[in-house]
Amino acid sequence: MDKRSLRVAVLGCGSVGSQVVRLLQEQATDLEARIGARIELVGVAVRRIDATRDVEVPDGLLTTDADGLVARDDVDLVIEVIGGIEPARSLILSALEHGASVVTANKALLAEDGPTLFEAAEKAGRDLYYEAAVAGAIPILRPLRESLAGDKVTRVLGIVNGTTNFILDKMDSSGAGFAEALEEAQELGYAEADPTADVEGFDAAAKAAILASLAFHTRVTASDVYREGISEVTAADVQSAREMNSVVKLLAICELRAVAGGDDAVAVRVHPAMIPRSHPLASVREAYNAVFVESEAAGQLMFYGPGAGGAPTASAVLGDLVTVARNHLAGTRGVGESAYADRAVLAMGETRTRYHVAIDVDDRAGVLASVALAFAEHDVSIQTVRQEGRGDDAQLVVVSHEATDAQLSATVEHLRGMDNVREVTSVMRVEGETE
Amino acid sequence: MDKRSLRVAVLGCGSVGSQVVRLLQEQATDLEARIGARIELVGVAVRRIDATRDVEVPDGLLTTDADGLVARDDVDLVIEVIGGIEPARSLILSALEHGASVVTANKALLAEDGPTLFEAAEKAGRDLYYEAAVAGAIPILRPLRESLAGDKVTRVLGIVNGTTNFILDKMDSSGAGFAEALEEAQELGYAEADPTADVEGFDAAAKAAILASLAFHTRVTASDVYREGISEVTAADVQSAREMNSVVKLLAICELRAVAGGDDAVAVRVHPAMIPRSHPLASVREAYNAVFVESEAAGQLMFYGPGAGGAPTASAVLGDLVTVARNHLAGTRGVGESAYADRAVLAMGETRTRYHVAIDVDDRAGVLASVALAFAEHDVSIQTVRQEGRGDDAQLVVVSHEATDAQLSATVEHLRGMDNVREVTSVMRVEGETE
Repeated sequence: MDKRSLRVAVLGCGSVGSQVVRLLQEQATDLEARIGARIELVGVAVRRIDATRDVEVPDGLLTTDADGLVARDDVDLVIEVIGGIEPARSLILSALEHGASVVTANKALLAEDGPTLFEAAEKAGRDLYYEAAVAGAIPILRPLRESLAGDKVTRVLGIVNGTTNFILDKMDSSGAGFAEALEEAQELGYAEADPTADVEGFDAAAKAAILASLAFHTRVTASDVYREGISEVTAADVQSAREMNSVVKLLAICELRAVAGGDDAVAVRVHPAMIPRSHPLASVREAYNAVFVESEAAGQLMFYGPGAGGAPTASAVLGDLVTVARNHLAGTRGVGESAYADRAVLAMGETRTRYHVAIDVDDRAGVLASVALAFAEHDVSIQTVRQEGRGDDAQLVVVSHEATDAQLSATVEHLRGMDNVREVTSVMRVEGETE
Repeated sequence: MDKRSLRVAVLGCGSVGSQVVRLLQEQATDLEARIGARIELVGVAVRRIDATRDVEVPDGLLTTDADGLVARDDVDLVIEVIGGIEPARSLILSALEHGASVVTANKALLAEDGPTLFEAAEKAGRDLYYEAAVAGAIPILRPLRESLAGDKVTRVLGIVNGTTNFILDKMDSSGAGFAEALEEAQELGYAEADPTADVEGFDAAAKAAILASLAFHTRVTASDVYREGISEVTAADVQSAREMNSVVKLLAICELRAVAGGDDAVAVRVHPAMIPRSHPLASVREAYNAVFVESEAAGQLMFYGPGAGGAPTASAVLGDLVTVARNHLAGTRGVGESAYADRAVLAMGETRTRYHVAIDVDDRAGVLASVALAFAEHDVSIQTVRQEGRGDDAQLVVVSHEATDAQLSATVEHLRGMDNVREVTSVMRVEGETE
């Protein structure tokens, strides 16, 4: 092995960046053996030089001049772990223009403007890797774009946000309501003071866009993703799921869907859904993540692990760094963007889903018939109806077969307007079963 | 995209080979888009031209002359799915010498003689990929050697043999004995008429050697792997596990273990073990496979899916084929063998394990003390003792702390010779808990 070295700049030194810097130093010998060259850290861009950090950055490497750092012509590899759209985007584009390959963990940027970055990498003849952007340490992007490259992926179901999984798991195990479970998540550090990005599904939607793009070789951006968070999930919903031997999870769902007279289209959505307890995703507890993949030849696969955290995310970043460094040394590139299939993206209303609906009804003869008629009027076929309680407690629980989401939501509106329906107490989509 | 093509030869057309040939034809358009060149099937080597097959092989492509096929100078890529040591080894070596890159699913050959193949690939400047050799369709080798390349893997626990998992799952769910569960597995096609390679752990040991080599950057061959199968596992063992809220699984265990005054050594073993039902591996049912990986930065990851079968294995083969084809076009190679760490491999006797031991004892005062003394004499510390039944049914169930396997097995021998021990009814190693 000759004594080449590669020069690395790190942008950001927060919870992920500090772990990246730590591992670059601690694993230096192994990294050199695995890459075939020494990794030399040449700069760490931060907002404030004197901030408190979890890692000791060698003297003289900290800088507040990120623009200057990525524009240096002696930097081979840039690791971007700042997050957010700007200045991350400009820095990545500048790094690529100046001949560096880039590793990033930036899901928001990739989901909003991935194609701009991919085209810049293509033009520069450099790599842009981003395993850490989805599901933290879990290797899922590389398996999707490489291991399954000879197969046809038909569906990806992911628990890709640890905060919401922690909250829903807590609601399931303790019967707590959303507010109470959120508070516990915040106390334990699983949720931020402003939890909007997590609980309203923005984080999961960004990851869904990235997963769908890779799985279906089609450009999918965050704006293509239908999104509902978990702040409206009630203890009654979770209880209703229990009675179905199911559990409520916030799922990122990416599917290929048949379209009459055309190529299969892509449907991508994030929303809470009931899945049977027998489904492998149902057993994903606390803040863990998991991604369940269905493909024609391989069948059903699942990838499970920590979805966030400084060290796990840094592991994914360094895995990419090793690949990108090897490619850089060999003068080659890894797989770039693959969007050849260029499929249409379905609107949520056209996407076929299944609903679970719990309804408080007047306990009168004929109420079941009139509810069934409401479903039939919207062309929605019923899979099961369960009738519970009597008198003031009378409740119907209906699970539909697949219909378009527009038909299903119109059915729910219809039910809400019916005389003998006192209240629609729970509406939840159902996933993870095949009809 | 220019109209280049790559010429592929397939060796073997059994359950995997026929699915490879089918997918090469059905996915031709997608493969071309993903590789950047057309894949042209130029020959399929079989033992008998006129055998019945699950796939229609295009006219003129079948040949019984495998040697001639791999020696053709117009073959770019060779897929070996014959299995076994010879003629597979000679054919792979010849293919590499003649300039082809190779994808193989041959675990037995890789575990017995991997270094010979890796060196030949290195010398030829070609790729040798083998994702399908371990855990069928589950992407595990690529994550180990690429995604986790920036991390330090400390342990791999795998359920890597579907036949034995089916049998043990059946014993657990129905209370059946080994013979009865094996018979059912054979009737359902999960076990072969001669089940030795599966039930005695030979298949799992080959996979353990491959996993350990990649995880620890050290050459590990099948002969380095301690191996015990499941044919001695009794209904009493499984029942004993149930009482511990555990389940018996055949595990492939690859670990880094501290050695006094030296570098960490590698310990690799395959044997039945009790794991707690709360462990992610415990929920792996029927013939599914799963591999649980622990690493310093990423923490705990699990990869789950079908471990065998024609189509799933073919998916893994074609994933490799896409990578190898891209490399071939780009004139580069992927990661070759990584054995730089060159760690020592511990003998089983020196490897630290934990035992669960159930003992029928005389219900006399002092029996617990004398059993405890036997453990102490071998320097084995006891974690828990449970005393059950009275009189003729008196039983002690002891779970030890970690000790060397030699100390633990000496303790069991000692117990067997004691006057007030009527019978040692169950001895089983315990995994999946940290002390």
